[in-house]
Amino acid sequence: MPQIVGKQSIQFEQAPYVLGSASIVGKKEGEGPLGKLFDVVGEDDKFGEDTWEEAESTLQKEAVMLAMGKAGLKKEDIRYIFGGDLLGQNIATTFGLLELNIPLFGLYGACSTAGESLSLAAMAVAAGYGENVLAVTSSHFASAEKQFRFPLEYANQRPLSATWTVTGSGAFVLGTRRGKVRVTGITTGKVVDYGIKDSMNMGAAMAPAACDTIYQHLQDFQRQQGDYDKIVTGDLGTVGQEILIRLLEEKGVDISKVHMDCGIEIFDSEEQNTNAGGSGCGCSAVTLSALLLPKLEKGTYKRILFVPTGALLSTVSFNEGQSIPGIAHAVVLEYAA
Amino acid sequence: MPQIVGKQSIQFEQAPYVLGSASIVGKKEGEGPLGKLFDVVGEDDKFGEDTWEEAESTLQKEAVMLAMGKAGLKKEDIRYIFGGDLLGQNIATTFGLLELNIPLFGLYGACSTAGESLSLAAMAVAAGYGENVLAVTSSHFASAEKQFRFPLEYANQRPLSATWTVTGSGAFVLGTRRGKVRVTGITTGKVVDYGIKDSMNMGAAMAPAACDTIYQHLQDFQRQQGDYDKIVTGDLGTVGQEILIRLLEEKGVDISKVHMDCGIEIFDSEEQNTNAGGSGCGCSAVTLSALLLPKLEKGTYKRILFVPTGALLSTVSFNEGQSIPGIAHAVVLEYAA
Repeated sequence: MPQIVGKQSIQFEQAPYVLGSASIVGKKEGEGPLGKLFDVVGEDDKFGEDTWEEAESTLQKEAVMLAMGKAGLKKEDIRYIFGGDLLGQNIATTFGLLELNIPLFGLYGACSTAGESLSLAAMAVAAGYGENVLAVTSSHFASAEKQFRFPLEYANQRPLSATWTVTGSGAFVLGTRRGKVRVTGITTGKVVDYGIKDSMNMGAAMAPAACDTIYQHLQDFQRQQGDYDKIVTGDLGTVGQEILIRLLEEKGVDISKVHMDCGIEIFDSEEQNTNAGGSGCGCSAVTLSALLLPKLEKGTYKRILFVPTGALLSTVSFNEGQSIPGIAHAVVLEYAA
Repeated sequence: MPQIVGKQSIQFEQAPYVLGSASIVGKKEGEGPLGKLFDVVGEDDKFGEDTWEEAESTLQKEAVMLAMGKAGLKKEDIRYIFGGDLLGQNIATTFGLLELNIPLFGLYGACSTAGESLSLAAMAVAAGYGENVLAVTSSHFASAEKQFRFPLEYANQRPLSATWTVTGSGAFVLGTRRGKVRVTGITTGKVVDYGIKDSMNMGAAMAPAACDTIYQHLQDFQRQQGDYDKIVTGDLGTVGQEILIRLLEEKGVDISKVHMDCGIEIFDSEEQNTNAGGSGCGCSAVTLSALLLPKLEKGTYKRILFVPTGALLSTVSFNEGQSIPGIAHAVVLEYAA
């Protein structure tokens, strides 16, 4: 039986292994600080397709195929896919995974979906519901701008607090076979609303949710920030990072020494004009696959807390004057000695 | 350990119980054939809110509160909510469940989400991840028309194959405590695409997915259609029903005697001008809660297969000329003598 810990967490007794992962990104991400670490960097952000949405679907499909290949598995070996993206009605996922013919649980948690999909995949494997299960998420700068803001052709200006949606997809095969990294626990987030209404400042909207989940995680597992080599949020960016650190400080937790944010890592914001950093479902997923997992596999990191954060809004809710609540799902990844 | 059966199914050894459920619907649904069976019928489809989207959020919140009450539980007793709706970025779910302060897994499977949420909730309870877990979905005629088609003010005409999105929300508490109905198994669907491009004929788009899941379910469990009192699809409507029965006939399975479709049950299509029937995430959920569960609780039905069906499209994918694939998730519900 799994071990339910505290209010919102599970500590897996049969912790699943990460058997393979893959990252595929666009040109700009390839030119950033992590550029050489990604498995595939596209030369053209349309990835050979006619539309941005089809391009994003292709990202997902390629990431999944590559992750399965690295795990030495075929699509017949995968029991379920847990997948999602940022677009209305998850169309990147639908059309990306169509040909794979694998039972699909479609998810939506905005940019937290990378954490949600890994959580559910780990729950499924740990419960014995499948020997191998796959988690995948994606985002695309151009399809996201069209979905959430304006068509690119408008060339509208971006405030300094704005983030840049990452073009990329990360896929992860979790399974029972022995590997080098395990998912040992999860803390599932609640919707947290601080009343932020500025859709160009997602970091501020998401930081309270990250704070809530990280704080609850440490309580539930009776751990301290120092028990982690890194506590890694998804896409708070520089503005959100500052808020998160301050919010946790108010609760007596100082994560400033161990905090890392995928959105800050993925771009050189001065050189690349990405303002507060990268964001999107793909941002945390490709950073986990390309930067964090290799360090866990080598034992450079013994244990990290991976906390993708999502801003829950749509153009409809935004235009109707609603606030932008956040949600964050935490996943514990450990070096399996 | 759970029992993985066949290619896409789970048969739960510790099958969770349905501890409580609730249905809340709009005025038109209240005037239909099932009108007297619903827990709450709104007099005004805005349910006291300013926008259709907020109205849909209110539906979810009320359905959840009522289902918890019927199960004799408080929100602190619920470990997770698995929830979703049809709107872009799941905003009905986000704002509906905000105040509940319960860890949330956001889902998107179009109208199949009622099956997806019940499947994941059952998986979580059966694995011991929570004593009580909640599944909820909703749809609203006016928010869905705005999302997928045209603002109501356009008063555009509807072809006979069109369905009418149900205004309603159904919520279900699954748990380990003994109850009268159990979720004994699930079959998780794949994305199935027959190349249908007519968004006013969702039944035709979804029927192949329903066929795929039902056929695989019977194979996986080594059962026949006669082993079920009813095989209940979500919202195929009259056009989709005919296609489903024919597609299964071609595979040697005749479900004509046991088939029921929630979309056909919920409206009197001639009297109420709903053409092919009702549809939406809420359609199958409220019908399960109001019509089917009471019959299972009394033992009138011993075992049913509940198969909500989803049409995977957005206005973006549709306008870009993509087809409308379908997905269907099957849930076995049994009378617990």
